[in-house]
Amino acid sequence: MKYPIGAKKYIKQYNSHSNRGMGLENDIEASNNYYLQNDIAVIHKKPTPITIAKVDYPSRLEAVIKEGYFRTPSTTDYNGIYKGKYIDFEAKETTSKTSFPLNNIHKHQIKHLESIYKHGGIGFLIVRFTKLNHTFLLEIHKLLDFLKNSDRKSIPLEYFKKHGYIIKDKYNPRVDYIEIINKLYFDGGSYEE
Amino acid sequence: MKYPIGAKKYIKQYNSHSNRGMGLENDIEASNNYYLQNDIAVIHKKPTPITIAKVDYPSRLEAVIKEGYFRTPSTTDYNGIYKGKYIDFEAKETTSKTSFPLNNIHKHQIKHLESIYKHGGIGFLIVRFTKLNHTFLLEIHKLLDFLKNSDRKSIPLEYFKKHGYIIKDKYNPRVDYIEIINKLYFDGGSYEE
Repeated sequence: MKYPIGAKKYIKQYNSHSNRGMGLENDIEASNNYYLQNDIAVIHKKPTPITIAKVDYPSRLEAVIKEGYFRTPSTTDYNGIYKGKYIDFEAKETTSKTSFPLNNIHKHQIKHLESIYKHGGIGFLIVRFTKLNHTFLLEIHKLLDFLKNSDRKSIPLEYFKKHGYIIKDKYNPRVDYIEIINKLYFDGGSYEE
Repeated sequence: MKYPIGAKKYIKQYNSHSNRGMGLENDIEASNNYYLQNDIAVIHKKPTPITIAKVDYPSRLEAVIKEGYFRTPSTTDYNGIYKGKYIDFEAKETTSKTSFPLNNIHKHQIKHLESIYKHGGIGFLIVRFTKLNHTFLLEIHKLLDFLKNSDRKSIPLEYFKKHGYIIKDKYNPRVDYIEIINKLYFDGGSYEE
């Protein structure tokens, strides 16, 4: 089986998960469960895309994957619905204290978010600077603005502070991004820091 | 690794894919690509959910899944955006000539579609009667009506004819469900058979 181009970076990310911790992913999972249980929003993480090469059948009703490969995801990790609107985002952590490296996001994921934006959906990134303990929401059009006007390979922390929104730590939901989305898109855009 | 309850049926389906053919799935995939390339809608199939039990690393940049198990999907297979609206559906084939067996759909998939409906999204089933060569779109509230008023374990073909919409065969897109959704939700509900 030929290894898909572009997947290597993904594998590297996967391999290092245990080192990096999966704090943000777990926090978002818990938040999505909270939204679901309280009937606020229906947002799910997509399964990791895998190419299955070999399956064994120990019994008629059992299947065990014996060979599989990680595929590069063609979309973002999270999508769903809030107040009738389509929601789509990607979540990433960085250990940098000064900027978010853009090689954390695949080009087709940015292209995907751009087309969501064009089709009237709400697309954004959630980026956590783990060593600063700051989590930001950055709307897709703010990300596209940055990419249009800069050749930098990372987005400075200052850009998040200026054009993004801090998601405050809470007990429940842990990462309340819907609160920000609600203020930005449904509450007359009444967002205040 | 304990085998997840409810996944056995899924495995059975997976095993029999090669026999059943995957005509509908391929047709929808081609249609979604058409919508994407022509900037009509952004709708993707979710990856098959898999629990990874063992991964080998033949080299620093390579990962091979050596043991994995199919999980019961917690949502439907397809979702995305059309004209700003959230779209969500499940697609199934049946070889029956008279009815669609309800054990083809998981209960939590129906519950998922129900909550999408409550949150203002557009949810539906696409069901193909392969031996009749008929493909129907059935809106989620029509499915819920049926379940409320019937104890039957399958939906009769007649119900699809009366409460669903036939998706006509086309060259491109092959399964033009967006045409029906457009007429039902965006064109003043001007649907005519």
